[in-house]
Order: sequence, then C-alpha cells, then structure tokens
Amino acid sequence: MRIVTFGEIMLRLAPNGYYRFFQTDQLQATFGGAEANVAVSLAGFGEDVSFVTRLPEHMIGQSAVNSLRYFGVDTSLIVRGGERVGIYYLEKGASQRGSLCIYDRKGSSFSESVQEDYDWEEIFRNADWFHFTGITPALGGSLPEICLHACKTAKEKGIKISCDLNYRSKLWSRPQANEIMSRLCPYVDVCICNEEDAADVFGIKADNTDVNSGIIEKEAYISAAQQLQERFGFDSAAFTLRSSLSANDNDWSAMLYTGGKSFFSRQYHVHIVDRVGAGDSFAAGLIYSMLHDNSPEYSIEFAAAASALKHSVEGDFNRASVAEVERLAGGNGSGRVRR
Amino acid sequence: MRIVTFGEIMLRLAPNGYYRFFQTDQLQATFGGAEANVAVSLAGFGEDVSFVTRLPEHMIGQSAVNSLRYFGVDTSLIVRGGERVGIYYLEKGASQRGSLCIYDRKGSSFSESVQEDYDWEEIFRNADWFHFTGITPALGGSLPEICLHACKTAKEKGIKISCDLNYRSKLWSRPQANEIMSRLCPYVDVCICNEEDAADVFGIKADNTDVNSGIIEKEAYISAAQQLQERFGFDSAAFTLRSSLSANDNDWSAMLYTGGKSFFSRQYHVHIVDRVGAGDSFAAGLIYSMLHDNSPEYSIEFAAAASALKHSVEGDFNRASVAEVERLAGGNGSGRVRR
Amino acid sequence: MRIVTFGEIMLRLAPNGYYRFFQTDQLQATFGGAEANVAVSLAGFGEDVSFVTRLPEHMIGQSAVNSLRYFGVDTSLIVRGGERVGIYYLEKGASQRGSLCIYDRKGSSFSESVQEDYDWEEIFRNADWFHFTGITPALGGSLPEICLHACKTAKEKGIKISCDLNYRSKLWSRPQANEIMSRLCPYVDVCICNEEDAADVFGIKADNTDVNSGIIEKEAYISAAQQLQERFGFDSAAFTLRSSLSANDNDWSAMLYTGGKSFFSRQYHVHIVDRVGAGDSFAAGLIYSMLHDNSPEYSIEFAAAASALKHSVEGDFNRASVAEVERLAGGNGSGRVRR
Amino acid sequence: MRIVTFGEIMLRLAPNGYYRFFQTDQLQATFGGAEANVAVSLAGFGEDVSFVTRLPEHMIGQSAVNSLRYFGVDTSLIVRGGERVGIYYLEKGASQRGSLCIYDRKGSSFSESVQEDYDWEEIFRNADWFHFTGITPALGGSLPEICLHACKTAKEKGIKISCDLNYRSKLWSRPQANEIMSRLCPYVDVCICNEEDAADVFGIKADNTDVNSGIIEKEAYISAAQQLQERFGFDSAAFTLRSSLSANDNDWSAMLYTGGKSFFSRQYHVHIVDRVGAGDSFAAGLIYSMLHDNSPEYSIEFAAAASALKHSVEGDFNRASVAEVERLAGGNGSGRVRR
Amino acid sequence: MRIVTFGEIMLRLAPNGYYRFFQTDQLQATFGGAEANVAVSLAGFGEDVSFVTRLPEHMIGQSAVNSLRYFGVDTSLIVRGGERVGIYYLEKGASQRGSLCIYDRKGSSFSESVQEDYDWEEIFRNADWFHFTGITPALGGSLPEICLHACKTAKEKGIKISCDLNYRSKLWSRPQANEIMSRLCPYVDVCICNEEDAADVFGIKADNTDVNSGIIEKEAYISAAQQLQERFGFDSAAFTLRSSLSANDNDWSAMLYTGGKSFFSRQYHVHIVDRVGAGDSFAAGLIYSMLHDNSPEYSIEFAAAASALKHSVEGDFNRASVAEVERLAGGNGSGRVRR
Amino acid sequence: MRIVTFGEIMLRLAPNGYYRFFQTDQLQATFGGAEANVAVSLAGFGEDVSFVTRLPEHMIGQSAVNSLRYFGVDTSLIVRGGERVGIYYLEKGASQRGSLCIYDRKGSSFSESVQEDYDWEEIFRNADWFHFTGITPALGGSLPEICLHACKTAKEKGIKISCDLNYRSKLWSRPQANEIMSRLCPYVDVCICNEEDAADVFGIKADNTDVNSGIIEKEAYISAAQQLQERFGFDSAAFTLRSSLSANDNDWSAMLYTGGKSFFSRQYHVHIVDRVGAGDSFAAGLIYSMLHDNSPEYSIEFAAAASALKHSVEGDFNRASVAEVERLAGGNGSGRVRR
Repeated sequence: MRIVTFGEIMLRLAPNGYYRFFQTDQLQATFGGAEANVAVSLAGFGEDVSFVTRLPEHMIGQSAVNSLRYFGVDTSLIVRGGERVGIYYLEKGASQRGSLCIYDRKGSSFSESVQEDYDWEEIFRNADWFHFTGITPALGGSLPEICLHACKTAKEKGIKISCDLNYRSKLWSRPQANEIMSRLCPYVDVCICNEEDAADVFGIKADNTDVNSGIIEKEAYISAAQQLQERFGFDSAAFTLRSSLSANDNDWSAMLYTGGKSFFSRQYHVHIVDRVGAGDSFAAGLIYSMLHDNSPEYSIEFAAAASALKHSVEGDFNRASVAEVERLAGGNGSGRVRR
Repeated sequence: MRIVTFGEIMLRLAPNGYYRFFQTDQLQATFGGAEANVAVSLAGFGEDVSFVTRLPEHMIGQSAVNSLRYFGVDTSLIVRGGERVGIYYLEKGASQRGSLCIYDRKGSSFSESVQEDYDWEEIFRNADWFHFTGITPALGGSLPEICLHACKTAKEKGIKISCDLNYRSKLWSRPQANEIMSRLCPYVDVCICNEEDAADVFGIKADNTDVNSGIIEKEAYISAAQQLQERFGFDSAAFTLRSSLSANDNDWSAMLYTGGKSFFSRQYHVHIVDRVGAGDSFAAGLIYSMLHDNSPEYSIEFAAAASALKHSVEGDFNRASVAEVERLAGGNGSGRVRR
Repeated sequence: MRIVTFGEIMLRLAPNGYYRFFQTDQLQATFGGAEANVAVSLAGFGEDVSFVTRLPEHMIGQSAVNSLRYFGVDTSLIVRGGERVGIYYLEKGASQRGSLCIYDRKGSSFSESVQEDYDWEEIFRNADWFHFTGITPALGGSLPEICLHACKTAKEKGIKISCDLNYRSKLWSRPQANEIMSRLCPYVDVCICNEEDAADVFGIKADNTDVNSGIIEKEAYISAAQQLQERFGFDSAAFTLRSSLSANDNDWSAMLYTGGKSFFSRQYHVHIVDRVGAGDSFAAGLIYSMLHDNSPEYSIEFAAAASALKHSVEGDFNRASVAEVERLAGGNGSGRVRR
Repeated sequence: MRIVTFGEIMLRLAPNGYYRFFQTDQLQATFGGAEANVAVSLAGFGEDVSFVTRLPEHMIGQSAVNSLRYFGVDTSLIVRGGERVGIYYLEKGASQRGSLCIYDRKGSSFSESVQEDYDWEEIFRNADWFHFTGITPALGGSLPEICLHACKTAKEKGIKISCDLNYRSKLWSRPQANEIMSRLCPYVDVCICNEEDAADVFGIKADNTDVNSGIIEKEAYISAAQQLQERFGFDSAAFTLRSSLSANDNDWSAMLYTGGKSFFSRQYHVHIVDRVGAGDSFAAGLIYSMLHDNSPEYSIEFAAAASALKHSVEGDFNRASVAEVERLAGGNGSGRVRR
Repeated sequence: MRIVTFGEIMLRLAPNGYYRFFQTDQLQATFGGAEANVAVSLAGFGEDVSFVTRLPEHMIGQSAVNSLRYFGVDTSLIVRGGERVGIYYLEKGASQRGSLCIYDRKGSSFSESVQEDYDWEEIFRNADWFHFTGITPALGGSLPEICLHACKTAKEKGIKISCDLNYRSKLWSRPQANEIMSRLCPYVDVCICNEEDAADVFGIKADNTDVNSGIIEKEAYISAAQQLQERFGFDSAAFTLRSSLSANDNDWSAMLYTGGKSFFSRQYHVHIVDRVGAGDSFAAGLIYSMLHDNSPEYSIEFAAAASALKHSVEGDFNRASVAEVERLAGGNGSGRVRR
Repeated sequence: MRIVTFGEIMLRLAPNGYYRFFQTDQLQATFGGAEANVAVSLAGFGEDVSFVTRLPEHMIGQSAVNSLRYFGVDTSLIVRGGERVGIYYLEKGASQRGSLCIYDRKGSSFSESVQEDYDWEEIFRNADWFHFTGITPALGGSLPEICLHACKTAKEKGIKISCDLNYRSKLWSRPQANEIMSRLCPYVDVCICNEEDAADVFGIKADNTDVNSGIIEKEAYISAAQQLQERFGFDSAAFTLRSSLSANDNDWSAMLYTGGKSFFSRQYHVHIVDRVGAGDSFAAGLIYSMLHDNSPEYSIEFAAAASALKHSVEGDFNRASVAEVERLAGGNGSGRVRR
C-alpha cells in the first residue's frame, strides 16, 4: 500500500520543558506540520508513504528532508526551490497557562508553490491513499487550486482521499475556509475533524458541547457527522473529542461515523508531554487501520490509541509502533514498565 | 503610576528539573527575591516600577541588575557596594518530597545596608505606591530602622504602602518578627499574608485550617483578617489560601478583606512548574489591580489569577502579561492551545 | 552494624526527560542495579555497607566504583576483571506509554564471575546482614552456585539474609527461577517481593488482584505471604503493593507479614519522577528499620515511606535521608516547601 | 553623551559549539544585528544609547526588546508593528570549514518600515552621535529613503554620523550598494569598513592584499582610506584588518586615517570563540573613544582592543567593559587569570 | 553509480566536549563505524549507497538504521537479528592527553553474522563499487569467510573493490591480521591505509617516519605503496599521512600511488573538533572522485580535502557537501565566514 | 603511605564553555580548592589520602564531602559545623581575555575554624606526609595558628611537610603573607611556588623573567630557589614555570631544586581546557614521586607531566592516572588516539 501526503513541513522552535519564550537561550528545533506528521506516523507503522512539499535547497531545507528520511518517509518527490522554511514558535503550556503558537510561515517555499511544481500523475503512480488537511489550502496563493487539481487527479485514479479540516484562524477567515473547503470536500472520502473545525469551517455545530467544561455529548457529535456526510457525501467522518481539564491533563477519545453508524472509542485520561500533532497521529492511525481493512470498531480504537500515545511523545511526530498502539487499543493503558 | 519596591535580590541556585542537589554538575542560576519578584511582575504588567536594593559592583552584582532591566524594571536607584550577592539554594520537590530551600545570604551587600545608603525623599519622588515584605527587616542589621524610615517618609508623602508579612523562621524568631513588624504595620495600608504568616508573626490564627489536609475554612480567614485590621488599621488585608495536596498539586485561591467585607476568588487546582514567588505574583496582581481602581471582586480575581499562572512559570519571576491574567481571571482556565 | 549486598551494577542509559530512545543525541548515563541500589540507600541512611560485585578495570568499570563511593558505600571488596560493564537502556514512560527497559548485560564481568572470585569468609567478616535479589542467580553461569555458597556461609556465621525475588522474565524462565530460588530461599530470613514475583517464581497467587485495575485486596496478600512463609520458613515476608493508574501516577503501599500478623503501611499516591529502584529502596528501608529493631508497624511505614520518596528521585539510587523518610513515615506528605 | 543607532535586530539561531546545522535538536537562540551590536557595546561602556528599529508586538518581538534592555540600551523609541522578527542561521566554522550564515529576514517588521514610523526630530533630541551601517539601506523598501532622511536630520542638528559600510552580497548587488551608499556617505563623518567593503561598494581597492593569505600591506590601506575620504569628505576613515589563518585563528588589527595621518593599532592573534559582531564592537569602541576625545593613537588601540576581545565572547554582543578594553589596549594580552 | 559498504555500525558513547568519562552524567550518543561512515559520506555526496550489516530488531537497533536513513543511505539490505548493538566509548583528548577508545562490541549482532545472512548476488545487483575495511574480518567468527565470499562475488560481477586496512590491535593480533588480509587483498583494487596499518598488518614500513615527531618523508611512503602494490596487485594504493602535534592540532595530507606514479595532496594544519572517522571520510572522498573519473591529482586533493573537513565535524559521520569539499580542494582553506 | 592535606573546599560556579558570567542561566557547579585538589590527585594515583576541613552539615556541605569520596579520598576526619560552603565564581578566559575569579568565601565554615576543631594527634596517626598551601592561613581567623599547630605536630611526629605558597592578593596583603608564612615555612620540607609567589610573599625575585612575555630564564629560577632554601632551610624547592601566550595557549614546565642542584622538566605547550588547579596537580605529582623515592630528574618530569595533563581536564580536580602521567613523562605527548 502506498500513501501520499501533501503539505508544509515547518521548523518548530520551542523552549525546552515548560520555559516561556526566550527564558533561556536554547530552543528545541525540530520539524513538523500536519501532513508531514501523518506521513511520519504511517512510516513508523511500516507503510510506504511519500511526503510531497516544496523546500529550499539550503541546509535548513535539507535538514527538513533528512528529518523525514530518518523515519523512512519517501522524500524523492519533494520539490526544491524558494528561500524559506516556514517556522512556528511553540511555547508549551502548563496548568492554567495554555500552549502558545506563533506562526512565521509567510513567504515560505511551500506557500509560494505553483501548479507546475507538482506532477500529480507521477506523484500518484501506484498510490492507494491521498491525505491532506485544511492547512494546505489555507496557506493561500496557488495552493487551493493545487489541492483541487491533486484531488481531481486522485479521484480519477481511484485513490482514496482523506482530509483533516484543521481550521486555523490565523491563516484564513471562516468564510474563506468555507468557500475553499466546500470545493475540495466533494472529492474527499474520509473527513477528519474536531467539533470546532466543523463549526468554524462549515457552521456545523456539535450542540451541547463546551470544550472548556469537559462535557461531551455523544448525540451532538453523531448529529454533526451526519450533517457533514450529507453535505459532502463522505464515506466516513471521524471526530476527535478533546476535553481540556488543564494544559497538563485532557480527556481524549474519538468517534467514527460510517455506514450510518457511530463508533466511539474508549476515553483516555492523558497526562500530556506534548499534545501538538495528536490530531495528525489520529488521522494516521485511522488511515492505517482502514487500509488494513479493520472493522470500524477497531479502526477507531486503533486511531484513538495511536493519538493517546502521541500525547506522551515530544515533538510533532508520533513515535509509536503498531505493536505499542495495538497493546493500548487492546486495553493495556496502565503504563507499567516493560522489562 | 510609579511603584517602588525595596528588598534583596538573590542568586537562586537550583538543580534542573527534579534533580536533587548536586545530582548533576549543573545549576540553574537565576535571580529572585520577594520584592524583586513583585517589581518584575509589575513591570511585566506595563507599570513604571523601581526596585531599590544594595548590590556589589562586580559582575555577579551587575548580572542581578541586568536581570531586572531585562523586564523593564528601573534599576537606577540601586546602591552599589559590599561584596556579596545573597544566595539561596532551591531544590524542587515532587510528589511527597517537599521543595527544599537553603539560605546563604549572611553578609550580603543588602543585609549590610546602612541608613545613609538610601535617600528616601529622592527614591519616592513621584511615587504612588511602596511595597516591601517582612523579609527585608528580618535580615537584621540596620534594615528594620531603614524600613521604618522608608515607611514614615512614604506616609508623609501620601504614598500607599503594602507589606507582605512573609515570615521566614530561618531569618528571625517569632518574637523578633512580632516586635519589628508591630512597629512597621501601623504605616501599612495593604497587608498581604497567608494563614501561617499571621499566626507566626502576630499569633493570629485562622482557626479550623490545616494546611496539610487541604481543608480551608472561609470563616476562619475572615476572622483573621478582621483581627489584623483591628490591630493595625489596615485599609485592606489579603490572604492567599494554599492547600498542598502534594509537591506537584496544590489548590490555590485568595481572599481580600476590605471595607468590612470579604471577597473570595475562585479556586485553582494548580499543577506546579515552580511555586516559588507565587505569593509575590499575588501581591503584584493586587497592587496592579488596586492602582487601576478595580473593584474588590475583580482585584482579588486578578491577583489570584496572576499567582495561579505563576505556578506554571519557571523561576522566581512571573512572566504573565495583563492579557493572560485577564483571560484567566475571566474564567478561561482550560489551558487550551492558542494558535 | 555492617551490611553486605551482592549483585550487578550496570550502566543505565536513559534519554533525558520523556524523550523516546535516540530522539536526541544525549543519554543520561548513571549506574544502578538492584543490590547496588540497596547498598546506596543504606549508605545514605548512615549504615556501614559493602557492595560486592565484579567489574572491569577500565575507566567505565572504575566509574561504576566511583558512583558507589560517592555515597559512602564500601567498594574495597569489589573484584576487578573481565571486559564489560553490563548495560540497561531505559526509556521513561508517560501517561499510557509504559517505561521500556532493554537489557544489554550478556558477557558482563559480573555474569562471568566464578566461585574463586569471592572469598565469603572474608567478605562476611563482622557482617550483620546479607542482601541479594533473584536477579543475581538469574544471570546464570556460576552465579546460582555462588549465591548458594554465599547463603550457606552467611547462615553459618549467623548473618541475617534478605532476598528480593525480583523476577525478570528476560533473564530466565519461570521454571528456572522456581528451581534455583527454591534452593536459595531456605537460607533466607526476610523475603521481599511484589505480587507478580510470588506468582511468577513460585506460582503463589495473591488472588483477586488485578495489577492494571488498581484494585488491591489485603486478604489476598496476606494469603500469599502465608504461603511463602510456609513453604520456606521465612521469618518475615514483605510485599510492595503497586497500583498503576498510568505511567505517571501510581498508588503505592506495602505489607509486612511476620509473627503470624500482617502490617499494612499507609498508601501513597505517587506522582512519578522515576520509579526504577523503588522496590530496592523499599528493601533498604526495611533492612534499616529491622536492624534498628523498630516495631513491625513502624518498619513497614518506614520502608514504604522510603520507597514512596524514591519515586520522586531521578536515577536508580534513592537519595533520601533518614530524616526525610521519618518525616514522611510520620505523616507529613503534603510536599510543602521547607524554608 | 547620547548615541542613536538604527537598524535591524534579528533572532540568531546557531547550533551549539561546533555542531553543524541540525546535528542536534537544540539551537542557541539569541539576538543580534550590526547596529544593535553597536548599541549594546556602547551601553556596556556606560554610554546613554538608544536603539531604533521596528519590531512586532508578539513575544518574539518583545524578547528582542528585552535582550537590549538587559544591557541598559534605551528601547523606548522602538516602533512596534509588523509580524516577523528577521532571522539569521549561523553555523560556526572550525579549522578549514568557514562559518556559514543563512539569512531569513525577508518580510521582517523592520524591512517593511515606512517613513512615518520614525520621527527623527524626536529620536535625535539631545543626541550627540548617530550610527548606522550599510545593511540598513540594503534591506530595501523604504529604508534607503529613511536612512537619507535620518542623515539629513542628524546633519541639521549637528549630530556626528558614523557609518559602517558592511557590504552584504546576499542583500544587494554592488551597483545597488554603490548608488545608495553614494547618496548617504556625503552626510557621514566617520566611515568604517574593511578592505572588502571598500572594494565591493565603491570599487576602491586596498591593493596588494590577499585576505586569504594573511598578507596585509599598510600602504594599500592608507591609499584606500585616502580615496574614500577624497570621494565623500569623511573626517575619518577606519579599517579593520583581518587575516584569516583558519576559522579558529585570525590576525586582527585596525587603522584609523584622520587629519591626513594613518594610525595603526597593534595586531592581535585571536583564537576565536565567536567572530560575528567583531566589526560592530570595533565601531562601538571607536565611537566611544572619539566621544571621549581620545587621541587617534589611543582611539584606534581602544577600538582594536574592544574588537579583539569580542572574538572571545559568544554571541553577537560584545560583553567587554571599559576596564577590560583599557587593560588590553594598554598591552596586557597574556590572558592570565585574574584572581 | 551504486556503492555497497559492509561492516558494523556501533553506538558511540562520548562525554560532551572535553569531559573525561563520567565526569558528568550525560553521554553524547550517536552511531558510527568505519564502513557506515564511508556510506554516510558518499550519501552526503549524492551517491546511491547501500550499507549492509546485521542489527537487532529492538529500538536501539532501529535507531542505528534511522541514523543512516537520515543521510539517505539505503538500509533496505540490513539484516535484522541478534541482541546487541556494538558499542564504543570515546573520550576526546586535548593537548597532551590523547583520545581514548574502549570497545564493547563482543557478542554484537554483526559479529555473530553467518554466511546465510547475506545474499551477495542480491546485494551487489547493479552495484559499481564495494568497500569494506580490515575491521570487519577482525571481528572474527564467520566474518573473515563472509568477507572472502563477498569479495569473490564482487570480483565475478566486475565490481571495483576498495579496502581500508584499518588495523585495530584490540581486535586481533598482527599475525591474525596478516593471514586474513593476505587472503582478502588479492581481490582488492584500491587499498587505503596509513603508515602504521601497512606496518602492523603486512610488516611494510614507511621508513624514516616517526608518527609522533611530525616528520613525514615522502620517499618512504612511495616505497611502502610500491611494496603493497607488488605484493597484492592493487590498482591503486592510497595513504593518509597524519602528523600529530597534539590532540588538538595535527598536520594532515595524503598520497595516491597509481600507475607507477605518486600524487601528494597539499598538507592541512587541522585544528581538531573530532578526528574519529577522518580516514573513512578520506576513503569516501577517494571512492567518489574515482567513480567520477577524476585525475589522480584531483582525486587525492578531493579525498584529502574531504577528510580535512571531517576533522571539523562532531561525530563519526562527515557532513561535508561536494561543494564544500571542492571549495577546499580548490585552495580556499582560510575558514572565512560565508554570508 | 598516608598523606594528609588541610584546607578549604569550595563550591566552584562557572559558566559552561566560554560563556561570560550569566550569559546563560546555567552554571557548572563542582567543588575544588587547592588542598582538596592535591588530595584528589593523590587518591587518583592510588594513594591513601585524607582531606581535613570543616563543612556545614546541610546538603551543600554533604555534596562537597561526596565529591571527594567519589575519588576515594578519606573524608572521615572532616569536621562538620558552620553554615556556609565557600564559593568561587570562575569565568574561563579565551584568547586575550583572561579568566576571572570572584571569591565569595567570607564566613565559610572552614574560615571560622577554631583550634579545638582539629585533633592533630589523631589526624596524623600513621601519616607520612602533610600538605597545605598559603591559602589556608590567608583565610585568617584562627587558621594561621591552626596551621602552626599542625606543622609543629607533624614535625614532632616526623611527618614530611610540603607547602605551596599560593599567594592570593584578594585574601591578604604581602606584609601579612610574609609575616605568617615566615613563621610556618621553617617547618616545611618541600616548598612549592611559582615565580610570582616567591616575589609576592618573600620579595624573592626570579630576575629577568616577564610572565607576560614568555621569556623564562633558568638562572633566575635557580637563584630564587637558592634564596628560598637559604632563608627557610627547605630540603627542596620546586617552581612551576608558566609562560602565558594567551588564555588558550601556555608554555608550562617546572624546576626542582634539591641537594644544591637544579632539575628542569621538559617544556609543554599546553592548549588549555581548564588551567585552574594546575599548580595543585603539580604538587600532587611531586609528592607522589617523592614518596615513591623517584630520582629528582624523574620526580620533576612526573610532576610536570601530571600538571600538563591537568590543563586538559575540566574542573579543579586532575583526573589523570599514574599510567597516563608516566606515558607523558616518558615522552609521548603527541595526543594520538588510544584505540
């Protein structure tokens, strides 16, 4: 099975531990980005996955490429050009202080992509699955059209398409997101989102939920999934359900709506090491499980377990093996020592 | 508005993370001290604040000065002389192991201050508020008399005075504290303390509280505040209320007693990054809010929120902005990512 | 009082913080091993303790020796020879992700010990107590016979013997463990274990417990202790009782069964810094308390408190003083700052 | 005396020690930039110096401000706006491998400055000296015109102007530099450069020099200074003379040409800790010495000594005191311990 | 062009900076080994290179694989099995204190390789070059026979073979080395060594050299190369010439003897960051240059320049690009900043 | 053989690498002090050595004790009491910037020693050698008299006494030093110093030397040694000869004057990692070699080699083995890798 993901990989600059920005003179410098995170997760699960993006030729760009090769992601289709690797500054929150994210990605090589940069016929040769997120078109320029072209090509070739709505208010407005995503979603088979995305992008509300209170109502999520499916004809719609007790402690679960039925995973109380990329690790878990023809019940458990584990891993990239995910999905969440 | 704080700034030497003393060969070396912490918090809130102390001229002394300038604190009134920067060694506790503090501040430049070092007429020019804590007179030598002189001068000039009792048993005995603080408190407008300070310094008990059990009785605090007010004629008395579940987890709230009424803040369950300086960040929040003529209800919420946030910040100094404090005081304590 | 412990000290290689293996290029490199950990704890309690092992002469071997001398452990009886210091790689778990331990100790100097390396008559001169764990014979080669010889010699000299079953499935099978430990246990006075050890080594079940669920049944532990005692004639049998809520949070308590009675310690909710070596710190606490003729009630409280504190200390070695353990055993577990 | 410098302050991201880019996951994150470096040096010498720039309001921008306040630089005239703090990536060279600098400063807040951002009448109130470098106009946009306006205003107010040519081929071409700098230089009193700058910007060659060979010909430098002075009417022209033996070892000296005479400093063999900012520390030393009416002989010795010391200091900013510079300028370069 | 290298990749554990072993609790943990180093260098030069070895399946083994993938080395032919990743401890020397290397590689997965592990027909499909070093057969077990089989297969397929003698006295004796290498060398086309290797393995002396004195006599090297060539029929023999002034400063050059002529590179005075792997980076430079049909004059300059640069790079792996090597081989060794 | 050294052990706080004070928030925190350094060196050489001092009971004091135990120094004679561990701040110099040392040792436990603290009869039981330096009496209080008492007791018991003059101008004046040291030196058998000490303490000049110029005249040193010997009747007088080229590069050698003859070691060009403690490692080397009845020629070579190696070791303590020193003393100073 071969998977293609398309998006931006950024330099992630984060103070170590719980320091605030520039409290010390060191920054943890790693790479990450929604679609790159999905690619790395899938490579870690042993899948053949290509990440497609555009990066500068200089050593910073090359380091981004290397960071993907480390995990076995195929980087041979990455276009080289432009001058900037996009950046995001991340300050990890604690207790009542939320994490803080400052984007510095304007003018990045990827955001200045043009249609000619990507030969989708070539990129999708022998591919089985295509994944992107709402962040890619949100970067503007030619990217909405490039995404559209990619989706159309994938559809023609019978490739499954998944999309994580991933709404980012700092990148585009709700009306912009609505317009563009409404053009892309008809090509999508599997829609992934959380309750805020659905509301922000499409005005679809998972009623009776309050993300700060920790109250999650199953019925509301089912209703939101149905609305999404009806509007765009998705095969499946998956929700991650986060209840934020504090910056350190969250409850985390997920739902898959498919074939007119809803499947809820067990709920995890996660004590957070790094929650960035949790949604991406969920998407990767779901794609993996669907590609391996698991039941909906197990698919959502696998995806929820993969993303629960991600909360315990530093950096954007999930570093959980299939065996580890399966062990947790199978019910062993006690965190005992393996020795 | 211009605020003056007066006290010692020390070198704080702490093992990184949860290491015990000298478990590794590195120490986190920052600066802090009760009144300096208040100054930094207020500067971070955008206030014009001067910190007054005495420091040696050498590079260690200069580094203490620089650490304050970094935050915009006015250091032009700092007296230079003597040989030592006071030190405190701090080992951060975890779970059932409490934090450990070892003072090494004898013979410091500040503790050897004499009356002639400080020209209070000059220091208080255009000042609106004067803040000090019980630690300053506890350092002995001429400091009790210097504090008395400062208080008298401030009173004459119509400057508001706040004092945090901050009893430290390693610096002086209870009778000593009682005698000196009883001479200083009649000049004070706003008294800040916790339940132990009131008992240790003045024998005033917030009955029915057990600091280790987590049980806090509102009535007892009101009674203690009333007793304090009656004895010294404070305009306001503010209490921080800490319930220590473990070295990692505390419940934290505060009460303001003013105009014959008590105002309790909401209670925060804080998962601790660094609790040193929490009381100082509370004092700064209260001073800020009072200077800006907020209601007692909001003032105590602002001060409690400021100090709840401090628990999530490494080092003595609070690094929370007014906007962050207002967001938390306004009820958003879920710690979600801001992106 | 003089105590001898016998076993392997390994190089422990662990990523810093919650990083997974090789996520950064740094490893925390310290030393540890069950019997060495007991020796260090006891030295920290002020006891005269000798650690006996076999280590190579090169600088890595010498560093292991030095790491013990640092705490005042007597290392003069350590045999030098062979080529390897055994290694274990440790990845600290978080939330649902358990800690991971990879042994690399084959061919170590200690595992290649022969009878002639150790002169037990000399080693036990003036000794009062001998401690070893099931890991030592599990390393195979001549070690089961060496342990047997050591036990016999100790018995002849009237030295008390304690043994922690410490079953490690990666080192030997259950039948192997059963056979060897059944030969050694008749010499043992004090048997220490957890519920899994008793089941794995001797098939003795503490019924009605589920280590992942957090449910601990007192009766079952008493029954297991009785069975152990009956089979081998132990003076005392002590159990540590761990309930693993997650990799970060455990409940921890202990039971001592002696003179036909059971004594349960209070239970601690521990927020974990490093749980490796907790059992060893328990053994050391128990030995210390028994050597000082404390009551069974206090002995088990002391041992449980020592090991509760260990959970808050980085590395294999406990770094808690007698005063700290006594304070916690006495009921002060609020983790407040000592200043 | 009051000095104003104008330019960009960037985030400097550098691997620690001699690591190549992304060889580890940590970057040393400090701030620097030619004119900011001059301001910090002068503040460290005890001067009253304002740094003028434009920075975003967010925490990264604020951290840049704080890094200047730390040294006592006046930051009250800094304009806040825009979105990006410019970045440069720096990899420190060693032996035959030269240091590597990658700019990522396009679209920075400063480079998007407009005339209205700066009120030069206000900025120059009570100022005695204005310093900028060729990097500021090289950033394009409105900056050449802003520089011109600043120079004219300074001239009208009788403020001395110094300019370091600082040619950067990655920012503009030689003809562009020639055109713009030819418009600015007539306002300049003190021109600072190295031999490459004079050649790159104005085609003025210090003949018979080969920067890689280590051969420096005094006569050629005098000739270049004369040519510069004749073309633009500078009061003084100062050259730094670097002979690069390797990335670790350089010979460093300087020349001041003024009043028709040339003054050469002694030559230093510098074993490099960090050579970035050496030219800026030279400019600061020269400005300081000139403002204090030192002789040309001493001024060039002071400036050369200040910049020789900079080579031993990590980061862009020089951290040498007047006393340290004077000691070295006075001949003590043996590097003995001061204790 | 496709290159195959065959050998062991080890975990390299080194104190940071110039610390001695266990002076701090941190070890720099990277991977390296002679043939792996060659593979990484060649991948960095843009070549298609496969590294063949045997590694355990666990996370330490996987991390070794990942460390190679990072640079684009093909790892698909690596055999997985066994339990240990070989280790070497490295303490970096300084001044008169030489670097210290302690091997801990006995029982490693690679050293326990058997013939059946490697399908050389498959491994060499489309290969153009095969490289190994004397370390591989020195590890004993089946490895000498495996090397012989690999050489024979390569020869049959017309693949060029290079071998670096790389004598390690801690792995085998001189007679052992002589016997085995004498069986392997007849298949080798390009022999690489230093003057000590030739003497240790084959008793061939580069007369009149004293490796500690810094005196290197060209004639002696030519004579040694001739003797090697005559004995084994090498196409080419290449020598690296190191003159060790101290642990920090070496002179470094190289000679290629081919077609009856000798070609000496220029000599570099290297100020050392890390000299481990210098010989491997030389081999890689030579292979690269020969594969690209460069002249002997340029080939030896390229290889010498590549390895001179390696001395400035931390870790076993060279991280120099073709452009960087070409710049240095072209004569620019001044180490100036590139900005 | 049993050696006793007597003096202060301090906490040494130093920025990492070449950072200036407080350029980062981390300090390297180790322990050191002249006589402690000698003790550690001798323990590293395998000698039985006791260090005598006075330290507080708290964890900082205990950590100082532990740091000595690590190396096998006997700490059982250390007196516990007082409140402070003395501190020195050390900033490592580079190039033209000298290292900077700031003492903060007033009021330390050791400096407040009284005669009753030390039972010299007990301390010197079975001792063969007693070593102290001029720093100990320079600390004032009762220490000059304590030293005198120790010297007298040692003399009576036939113990050899060595003293390093170690003049520190920040601790006492030249007249003070002259007076006290003139009372102590008559008891001393082996006097160790450098040329500045002899001049500062006793006004004895090694004429024609200029410590900054690198010129060292043998005759002058011989003359100074003769003068010292004549004045106090030393058996032997030893000089370390340092020529400071820069903070990174020194020439280092030594002379022993005994039996009317002078013996000069070879000279080492040292590239410095850390030069603090070099004199102490020299003293230890000399004591070791004299105790082992080496010839004067070899003794001075051994001592010079030991101290040359110290320059390559971080921290106050030398970590060179006898084998390493012998190898260097035997002429191998090329710094080649040992593998």
